[in-house]
Amino acid sequence: MIHLDSLERRYRGNLINSLGGFKSICLVGTKNTLGNENLAIFSSLVHIGADPALCGLIVRPSIPPRNTLANILESRSYTINHIHESMIDQAHQTSAKYEASISEFETTGLKSEYKEGIYAPFVKESIIKFACEFVQKIDIEINGTSFIIGKIIDIIVPNEIIENDGFINIDKAGTITATGLDAYYTTSKIKRLSYAKPNSIAKLIS
Amino acid sequence: MIHLDSLERRYRGNLINSLGGFKSICLVGTKNTLGNENLAIFSSLVHIGADPALCGLIVRPSIPPRNTLANILESRSYTINHIHESMIDQAHQTSAKYEASISEFETTGLKSEYKEGIYAPFVKESIIKFACEFVQKIDIEINGTSFIIGKIIDIIVPNEIIENDGFINIDKAGTITATGLDAYYTTSKIKRLSYAKPNSIAKLIS
Repeated sequence: MIHLDSLERRYRGNLINSLGGFKSICLVGTKNTLGNENLAIFSSLVHIGADPALCGLIVRPSIPPRNTLANILESRSYTINHIHESMIDQAHQTSAKYEASISEFETTGLKSEYKEGIYAPFVKESIIKFACEFVQKIDIEINGTSFIIGKIIDIIVPNEIIENDGFINIDKAGTITATGLDAYYTTSKIKRLSYAKPNSIAKLIS
Repeated sequence: MIHLDSLERRYRGNLINSLGGFKSICLVGTKNTLGNENLAIFSSLVHIGADPALCGLIVRPSIPPRNTLANILESRSYTINHIHESMIDQAHQTSAKYEASISEFETTGLKSEYKEGIYAPFVKESIIKFACEFVQKIDIEINGTSFIIGKIIDIIVPNEIIENDGFINIDKAGTITATGLDAYYTTSKIKRLSYAKPNSIAKLIS
């Protein structure tokens, strides 16, 4: 067993960040009330519920608050955009510490696009994306992070990758996954299994 | 754009559950104070911080509380175990609604194993696994779920898949990822990139 107390800080960071399995990574698009756009990569997207449709994001502490969090609190609007293999370098680059006045859309070349009724910008290159309305910020006292809860209000997904039962073949859109702080992966479907019940064996759906 | 209000319940569940990208899935091992073991699949594991090493899990509401949550609150101990391709059917089967007195280790054939100083059982078949100590339960009022925060206290990872900088090649252990409620995926590494800085291009690490 590895005991954590003895590990060097950076080694420990890499180890703990890759210990939690493959992560749901995405680009979060926001805009402040002056109209400055911001785009940032997050690897902490988590499903909270389907009805109401809710998702969560862990946001790290910083003083002054990072642009993404400040913009969400100011405008109550943000978008979540899938990252595809062709966008990895640009998505990774959004994690550099740019000044607040600089838009990561401009520095990375990813294009912003707007949809009626949604204040925050989407990423044009993302095939799967959705808009969230800010619901709640929960402060996690033990390490100063915050858990941001959002309600999913509008969804953009191509019809041809949605199955009859609503399941989205996100691998067909080239959505990637990640682990650690910097490692990106493509995926291959093994199988889908039917709803599990006691005393019976789940069947292969596809 | 897809508007959510008009969707049928099951369709909506599948859609929202696959919208959030690839998830970090794991098996959570617990034991109540009577000694009854429990094992349950979760797809909501999220990294909260590296120092202290913290992770979170979203737990769904139920009355009476599901075994996993009740056991964590009772014993303050739980383990998180990676799921590998050879374990998918058994891991999926742990989501069936067994009675509290029935151990999912027995019904699925996955084996429990114990480590000195850790009350909760690990999954013997998991190559990467760690023990957590319960820190905090945060109730999410909007939908009745809870966010369980745990401190990572001991880690089991084979040395040969850990890089010199602490990064764990979890794909080499065959750790899988998932999306939706029932779809399992294997992964292939595309690349690791160096720490991103403004005005420079991240380099290929591996």
